[in-house]
Amino acid sequence: MERVVLIGAGRLAFHLGQALKSAEFNLMGLYNRTADNGKELAEALDADLYLSYTEIPKDADWYIIAVSDSAIAEVSHQLQGVNGMVTHTSGSVDLDALQQHAKRGVFYPLQTFSRRKAVRFQDIPMLVEGVDPETEEMLVGAAARISHRVERIDSQQRQYLHLSAVFACNFSNHMYAIAEMLMRSRGMKFDLLHPLIVETTEKALEKGPYSVQTGPAVRRDQSTLDKHVTLLEQHNWAELYKLISESIQQNTP
Amino acid sequence: MERVVLIGAGRLAFHLGQALKSAEFNLMGLYNRTADNGKELAEALDADLYLSYTEIPKDADWYIIAVSDSAIAEVSHQLQGVNGMVTHTSGSVDLDALQQHAKRGVFYPLQTFSRRKAVRFQDIPMLVEGVDPETEEMLVGAAARISHRVERIDSQQRQYLHLSAVFACNFSNHMYAIAEMLMRSRGMKFDLLHPLIVETTEKALEKGPYSVQTGPAVRRDQSTLDKHVTLLEQHNWAELYKLISESIQQNTP
Repeated sequence: MERVVLIGAGRLAFHLGQALKSAEFNLMGLYNRTADNGKELAEALDADLYLSYTEIPKDADWYIIAVSDSAIAEVSHQLQGVNGMVTHTSGSVDLDALQQHAKRGVFYPLQTFSRRKAVRFQDIPMLVEGVDPETEEMLVGAAARISHRVERIDSQQRQYLHLSAVFACNFSNHMYAIAEMLMRSRGMKFDLLHPLIVETTEKALEKGPYSVQTGPAVRRDQSTLDKHVTLLEQHNWAELYKLISESIQQNTP
Repeated sequence: MERVVLIGAGRLAFHLGQALKSAEFNLMGLYNRTADNGKELAEALDADLYLSYTEIPKDADWYIIAVSDSAIAEVSHQLQGVNGMVTHTSGSVDLDALQQHAKRGVFYPLQTFSRRKAVRFQDIPMLVEGVDPETEEMLVGAAARISHRVERIDSQQRQYLHLSAVFACNFSNHMYAIAEMLMRSRGMKFDLLHPLIVETTEKALEKGPYSVQTGPAVRRDQSTLDKHVTLLEQHNWAELYKLISESIQQNTP
């Protein structure tokens, strides 16, 4: 499984393409709808650039669809007639989205990518799923060439993983954002909290977040909880504060 | 302002005492209700140990109350008759809790402390409040000897800061804990998410969390939001998911 065609030239394609090239995969070419991003990445990867689906060779061993979730089905359809393995790279799209293809799979790097920021791909968990044992075996082997953390998970587990990432990343970021807004409303800068956030996050990653929960909710410090709800009534977060505090109290070690 | 008496021998007293000693304050003695923790810390600080309030000298320049929030009023009462400055170290207790004392203030290090883990006190924001400009000036000066980040904030700002810390630390930790529980329910380990959490937190601290929010809520990806709510109905977090997603949508740059 060597001759690879990459579809897409977004942030994920950008970093994944470079990881594959470093691992000495044979990147035949890159498809992108538009020349702008495509050209830069094709040059970086020393690969051909295809700007229409008809240009994509039918005889590659592996087609990697690295486009936005909503475009995956359309790309899969356009790839009809190829014989190689076809995989998407999404955390939230089912394997069945590729059902036109006999050898289908998922090749999902669990990380968020910025165009300008380098990543150590070796440290990124690669989560793979194949339609059959043979396909899955090939994907595990390919993933192991670019990352030292490879796991097989099925589509249902991947749904849960994506949901978990929403809590752990998007929602925890929103908790920071609420803190930032509250502080700003009283003339304080968010970066006062940086050392505390760094310390708390380190502890959660080291010991597991469930076991290190602190704060007024877990202490059942009702007078502080009441004071906070009163402060929040002039903002929009009193209900949210109560619901999260209750969830903490219901999930205490 | 040199001769200092420290009240308490918990984690905060442990780290603050050592920072004060390193900054060459004259730590006369340490009061603690019980000998166990008190003895160890008094020895480490080369200070006398007082086990009853009557032993506490009346002529110290500064009394630092580093006990749990609920014990501050009682300690303040027991210190009646001293002439030096009296401060507590709490993020959530009003300055008025020390109203028996003419020279009262707050000396609040914004960090969470573990007994075994060393901290660089220099990096911890010191938030001070004095009952009058002279007291506040003395506290700013003292704080600057142990930390390079000193700010004056009043009791109302400190309430907001404490509330913000609950969101930024306790609540974001609970978001991690929910992720951990969801993953465990499907046979996956939380540490798969570590690289993603590290990256997301770094970005939030570097650019400000409000401006870097990502995820299905901010993208208004209704089909993913619906799918997630359906998954969560068998757990207890469907309402929480909806409420946080709405708050993200209402607070989008």
